[in-house]
Amino acid sequence: MVEYDAVVVGAGILGLSTAYHIKVRNPKANVLVVDKLGAAGQGSTAKSAAAFRCFFYSRTNFDLADSSVEFYKHIEKDLGFDLKMRWIGYLWLFDEERYGGMLPILKELAGRGFQYKEYEAEELAKKLDMRTNFAGDEEAQLMGLGNVYKGILIPKAGLLDVDSLVKFYESEFLRLGGKIQYNSEVTEIVVEPCKPLGMPGEPYFWQDAAVVGVKTIKGMVRAEKTIIAAGAWISQLLDPIGIECFIKAKKRQVFSVKAKTEALKRLLYIKEFTNAGFLPFTIFPKPSSYIRPAPEEEAFWLAYADDFPRAFKIEENPEPEENFYRYGLYQVTVKYFPQFIGCEPFSAFAGLYEINTVDGQPLIFEENGLMVVGGASGSGIMKADALGRIAAALYSGEEYAMLYGDRKFKISDLGLKNRHVEPEKLVI
Amino acid sequence: MVEYDAVVVGAGILGLSTAYHIKVRNPKANVLVVDKLGAAGQGSTAKSAAAFRCFFYSRTNFDLADSSVEFYKHIEKDLGFDLKMRWIGYLWLFDEERYGGMLPILKELAGRGFQYKEYEAEELAKKLDMRTNFAGDEEAQLMGLGNVYKGILIPKAGLLDVDSLVKFYESEFLRLGGKIQYNSEVTEIVVEPCKPLGMPGEPYFWQDAAVVGVKTIKGMVRAEKTIIAAGAWISQLLDPIGIECFIKAKKRQVFSVKAKTEALKRLLYIKEFTNAGFLPFTIFPKPSSYIRPAPEEEAFWLAYADDFPRAFKIEENPEPEENFYRYGLYQVTVKYFPQFIGCEPFSAFAGLYEINTVDGQPLIFEENGLMVVGGASGSGIMKADALGRIAAALYSGEEYAMLYGDRKFKISDLGLKNRHVEPEKLVI
Repeated sequence: MVEYDAVVVGAGILGLSTAYHIKVRNPKANVLVVDKLGAAGQGSTAKSAAAFRCFFYSRTNFDLADSSVEFYKHIEKDLGFDLKMRWIGYLWLFDEERYGGMLPILKELAGRGFQYKEYEAEELAKKLDMRTNFAGDEEAQLMGLGNVYKGILIPKAGLLDVDSLVKFYESEFLRLGGKIQYNSEVTEIVVEPCKPLGMPGEPYFWQDAAVVGVKTIKGMVRAEKTIIAAGAWISQLLDPIGIECFIKAKKRQVFSVKAKTEALKRLLYIKEFTNAGFLPFTIFPKPSSYIRPAPEEEAFWLAYADDFPRAFKIEENPEPEENFYRYGLYQVTVKYFPQFIGCEPFSAFAGLYEINTVDGQPLIFEENGLMVVGGASGSGIMKADALGRIAAALYSGEEYAMLYGDRKFKISDLGLKNRHVEPEKLVI
Repeated sequence: MVEYDAVVVGAGILGLSTAYHIKVRNPKANVLVVDKLGAAGQGSTAKSAAAFRCFFYSRTNFDLADSSVEFYKHIEKDLGFDLKMRWIGYLWLFDEERYGGMLPILKELAGRGFQYKEYEAEELAKKLDMRTNFAGDEEAQLMGLGNVYKGILIPKAGLLDVDSLVKFYESEFLRLGGKIQYNSEVTEIVVEPCKPLGMPGEPYFWQDAAVVGVKTIKGMVRAEKTIIAAGAWISQLLDPIGIECFIKAKKRQVFSVKAKTEALKRLLYIKEFTNAGFLPFTIFPKPSSYIRPAPEEEAFWLAYADDFPRAFKIEENPEPEENFYRYGLYQVTVKYFPQFIGCEPFSAFAGLYEINTVDGQPLIFEENGLMVVGGASGSGIMKADALGRIAAALYSGEEYAMLYGDRKFKISDLGLKNRHVEPEKLVI
């Protein structure tokens, strides 16, 4: 049987980026990616809202996202690979209370050189034809909706085409000689004693043991290093060997609404905010559901990352819920943007966040011959390149990874034992 | 339908202690305990090794254990309720390397007034008729067994009868007017909007919502406060409402071996260490499997808390594994104590640790009308009284709990958000 140098479990964006960067650093390494689905990026990766921002309070988050986005720019500009990046910006709306809390954070970020533009409520109301004040609207008050007090436009933010990004990493990995096996669900991580005695039921607890590969429905794959990048499914794979990774799955849903009317078209193609010629990715004050323009579909995606009491749950085929749109997203959206009154979604999809429930930031660590790359908590697309580089550097036994643009990153900062991540104060 | 002031899910030691202390503080409160089993303390509580020590590096651990043990003494001495406490001590054996690491910790503890007694290897070999050095024993070296370099006897430590402790809390709780429903498995924690609108599918994400009780197989139980003390099953109950508690289940097994021979009887009834007249609870250097004397059975319990690759797994009826004894515990034990050669277990049992995978210390917190008491990670018996008092104080909205012996304890120290626990450096 072939023994691979590395087997990467998961052909989502993190698995592919990791496999690609391992192959770039180790051209001779025999690297295999396995995935249960029939093609690359078909799991949660395909269900992403596919937006990015280079605007975070936590330096960890910023370095991961900004260096990745810079690499994606490089892919488009220098490598001629179209990722359909659209620099539409993020328009973050705040009520007075939350804005008060944000002010010191924004000032600090401005001091660090971050760019953003502030808008007054009246300006936004006029430009966007939106409602910013719910005084006298009993229904809105019952719903606890926040008034718009200010808006912050973040210019270094936008959209990209996930499928193109997946194709880039997949094709480059294959071009470098990497191998991928689709339709090969992993059923088990295999642990063996480091010094096998050939006795029944090994390893015994007094034996050192390590991960030696994975069992798939198509057979055993042995590898020097096993790398789990299976997103929301990581815990399901690690629990049977008693390794904790603090990753849990939560459903996220996106509903797509066509810009059918003139008013909605005006909103979609608004030119006042960025040169992209589209509405920015717009986040409401409270609850912070959002509108993500979908230019290719001449549509808007509506979504919200709901917390309590949304279950932690792994589902093979998470379904969008009609009521989530009807009584949730629709009701909130029409209060701010009456243009949406009467709109029904023409399509919808749902995926799973792989949430790091400790701090919401990614995890990359090695334990007993096993590496884990995950916990991106909903920002896997925008951080995928950096995470792949960090994982590849850990694979090579380095202490630091070099992110795109020559930014040095201490690998253990994303580990379990000496983890060091600054808390994020800019959570949508 | 009755609406209870509090419903406590779980009639294990933590649930009962919590219910009892709530009732003590609030004599008029209508408190119900529900449990899926037919009697109190029949889950993991009944599977405990039932040992205690008042010797921890972490002040949190020490305060929780020491105040609980002092209360148990008080139960025996002043309330005349026999808990069969036996002050047999812990005899902790170390190899040279681990002892080197322990030395500064032990010195610090001595400075804080902790008592312990140190033994040399030769002394232990003679007193206990044990092997302390495996030079020349290839098998022992293959097994990676640690030599005994020193032994530390901790006098404030011993055994108690879990069933008696359970009976104490159960009967006192009932005497104070508390109610218990057995055979009432909880199937669901029920969440409702704080201001219901009577619409289908509530709560919507823009509604404030809270826990209002639990569904059991015998019907709904409504309560002002729902308290989950379901041990290894806590995550299974919390996941469906998306609350993270960082608790995972791991099987732990105990094998009981009769002291049949003269040599084993001598070992069991050794008088040289404490006045109790029994072998101390004895922990081997490496791997740290242990011998827990079981005087009532004229036996020894052998056990080990194995880690990787022992699965995180919830099982309704965890079974002890023959191979765990045969190739694991037996092999290690006979190397140190040849007296055990040929011994077969006459009985065995297995239970589940409810491990707090973040720091191994207990968790008590409140979120959305739900309280959680758990994560005791294998020391639930020895900390149960303190944890019940802390939970009861949180129930009453206090900032501090008063532990037995008038020790003040900041409740949020065991919470999720402002958690403050010192790392434990004395883990078996």
